[in-house]
Amino acid sequence: MIFGLCPAVTGQGFLICGVWIILEAMTARAVEWLEGKLRVLDQSKLPREQVYADLGDYRDVVLAIKDMRVRGAPAIGITAAYGVALGASAIETSDRDVFMVRLREIMHSFSESRPTAVNLFRSLERMKRAADGADVGEMKKALIDEAAAIHEEEMAATRRISESGAGLIQDGFCVLTHCNAGPLATAGYGTALGIIKAAHEQDKHIRVLATETRPLLQGARLTAWELKQCDIPVTLITDSMAGHFMQQQKIDCVIVGADRIAANGDVANKIGTYTLAVVSRENNIPFYVAAPNSTIDVSLNSGSRVPIEERSPDEVTSFRGVRITPEGITAANPAFDVTPHRYVTAIITESGVMREPYTESLKTPAA
Amino acid sequence: MIFGLCPAVTGQGFLICGVWIILEAMTARAVEWLEGKLRVLDQSKLPREQVYADLGDYRDVVLAIKDMRVRGAPAIGITAAYGVALGASAIETSDRDVFMVRLREIMHSFSESRPTAVNLFRSLERMKRAADGADVGEMKKALIDEAAAIHEEEMAATRRISESGAGLIQDGFCVLTHCNAGPLATAGYGTALGIIKAAHEQDKHIRVLATETRPLLQGARLTAWELKQCDIPVTLITDSMAGHFMQQQKIDCVIVGADRIAANGDVANKIGTYTLAVVSRENNIPFYVAAPNSTIDVSLNSGSRVPIEERSPDEVTSFRGVRITPEGITAANPAFDVTPHRYVTAIITESGVMREPYTESLKTPAA
Repeated sequence: MIFGLCPAVTGQGFLICGVWIILEAMTARAVEWLEGKLRVLDQSKLPREQVYADLGDYRDVVLAIKDMRVRGAPAIGITAAYGVALGASAIETSDRDVFMVRLREIMHSFSESRPTAVNLFRSLERMKRAADGADVGEMKKALIDEAAAIHEEEMAATRRISESGAGLIQDGFCVLTHCNAGPLATAGYGTALGIIKAAHEQDKHIRVLATETRPLLQGARLTAWELKQCDIPVTLITDSMAGHFMQQQKIDCVIVGADRIAANGDVANKIGTYTLAVVSRENNIPFYVAAPNSTIDVSLNSGSRVPIEERSPDEVTSFRGVRITPEGITAANPAFDVTPHRYVTAIITESGVMREPYTESLKTPAA
Repeated sequence: MIFGLCPAVTGQGFLICGVWIILEAMTARAVEWLEGKLRVLDQSKLPREQVYADLGDYRDVVLAIKDMRVRGAPAIGITAAYGVALGASAIETSDRDVFMVRLREIMHSFSESRPTAVNLFRSLERMKRAADGADVGEMKKALIDEAAAIHEEEMAATRRISESGAGLIQDGFCVLTHCNAGPLATAGYGTALGIIKAAHEQDKHIRVLATETRPLLQGARLTAWELKQCDIPVTLITDSMAGHFMQQQKIDCVIVGADRIAANGDVANKIGTYTLAVVSRENNIPFYVAAPNSTIDVSLNSGSRVPIEERSPDEVTSFRGVRITPEGITAANPAFDVTPHRYVTAIITESGVMREPYTESLKTPAA
């Protein structure tokens, strides 16, 4: 993928190889639609560099998702929707049937980008339904409108999630979060981090323990960065330290995001979530999951059928291109795990705070 | 600390700044007494480089322990004993009282190097008792002999631990281990890895899942390296993946080492051990701890009083000098945690396989 020319947004920066490198801390937008282009913030380079790229070819959007330059279940769903709209805009035909064949090819490319987050597939379903109109021109416009609608609805959902969830956070709480479920991951206000931010805005004194989240360090790189921008005190820990702090009763609750939630409340989320949930319950610490309705997959009775993405072993065996283990050693790299619903104290969606039995409480129609 | 001139041992290498860099895989000795010098393998540089240093000043030995160039509870105990002998040898006096004052200062330096592994303090007690003889010359010799005796006893202990523990490992087992408890950590055959090696030598087909063990990556760097040298199949995982593989019933048992075991069987070991033990029990997976009697601290009724070392936050916020989190973010870095005995299926010492109630079974006189 070639990251295209990107004009500066705000802040100090410099142009290198056609890409703006922004050095100053600033409010970052994960994804932004600019007529005919999709601007994405390259999350793989944060926090050292804020590199924005304006993508004009849908295949670059597919790659941005695959390579996790854009990541986080809601952000992936929004980005895929815009990516489909972008690809559709470039189809040069006035024949509806030809247009639909090409559109399906574009959607197929997105459907193969990442398997676990259901938001992607939900977005593609919506975009497919939206491909309607008197002619190809109207269809293209309808797709852009639908992508924007998905983005707006998801942004609104994160606001409502944050307001609902903030009630669970008491003044003085130390909250543990894993991976990153903030504005970058949601292209909105955030889910897990949104709740923390909303509680902070209610003048509650909140402290956060953020797990670094190996292998790709979303906690160390992104969560720490987002919390620092909000002046919320954060302490970084390695993933293996969380249990120790739970045992020491230093953590009042855990809040994480989700990539797919089954009808029974089983939660697929970043690898390590299951472990945190088990150790939370062992220490009587509430374990909350925050996610929009678009993350709920009612077609799955349980989490056992969620496809778990296996990523490259290089992410584990190397660090920034430097190998950390002897040559010839292989690694496993499942990117997600499944937390059975019995460990989940509540699931916070835009519909409110849902509790067991989730088969009933999650029945709210998905967006 | 200045790592001194070190002659090549075996294998291809080159001399740089007075230190031999050995490039070829070879059997490595963590610690070796050479008349008047202590040769230590710098474990912080493995597996990329095998750098040996011949230390002639006890203060360099203290630093080698503090900086974790030598690490692992048994290896620390052995190294401290040799370090005391080294320091004592250099005391220039024939006055017994003056000698004893200086010796106590040396011992005090070692006692402040690292707080958690009790083997260090047990070694110092033994060295203190061994400082006896008709004159200073005899006392110096007695100290060298005692250090060598500690080393020999610990080597023999790891052999017996490995033989006892191998009986717990069945053909076809997938064993999970955390951090590093092999020859490097023990200056012997290994404890947790010793058991795995002994089972492998009994022609059992064993596979190992090794956690990388953030922040200092002893699993990725040392355990993977040691197992590869023994041709034992090993797959590296991040610390947060262990629970997922337990949940998937891919792990038949867990074996770890220990830094201090209380009289009731509570186990202080590398941070993350407690979490592994909790998730093991949740999934009915046996959780074994392998350690010599010198790791048992009968003076502590429970693990709650084990001093937990807090190391530099830089180990968490940086990787090889490159910062991974934004400037201004702090990190916690407890190096150990305590696993309550109720999660421990058995403790394997040179006296055999000990089970609950540990207050009884661990009563075997410590070395």
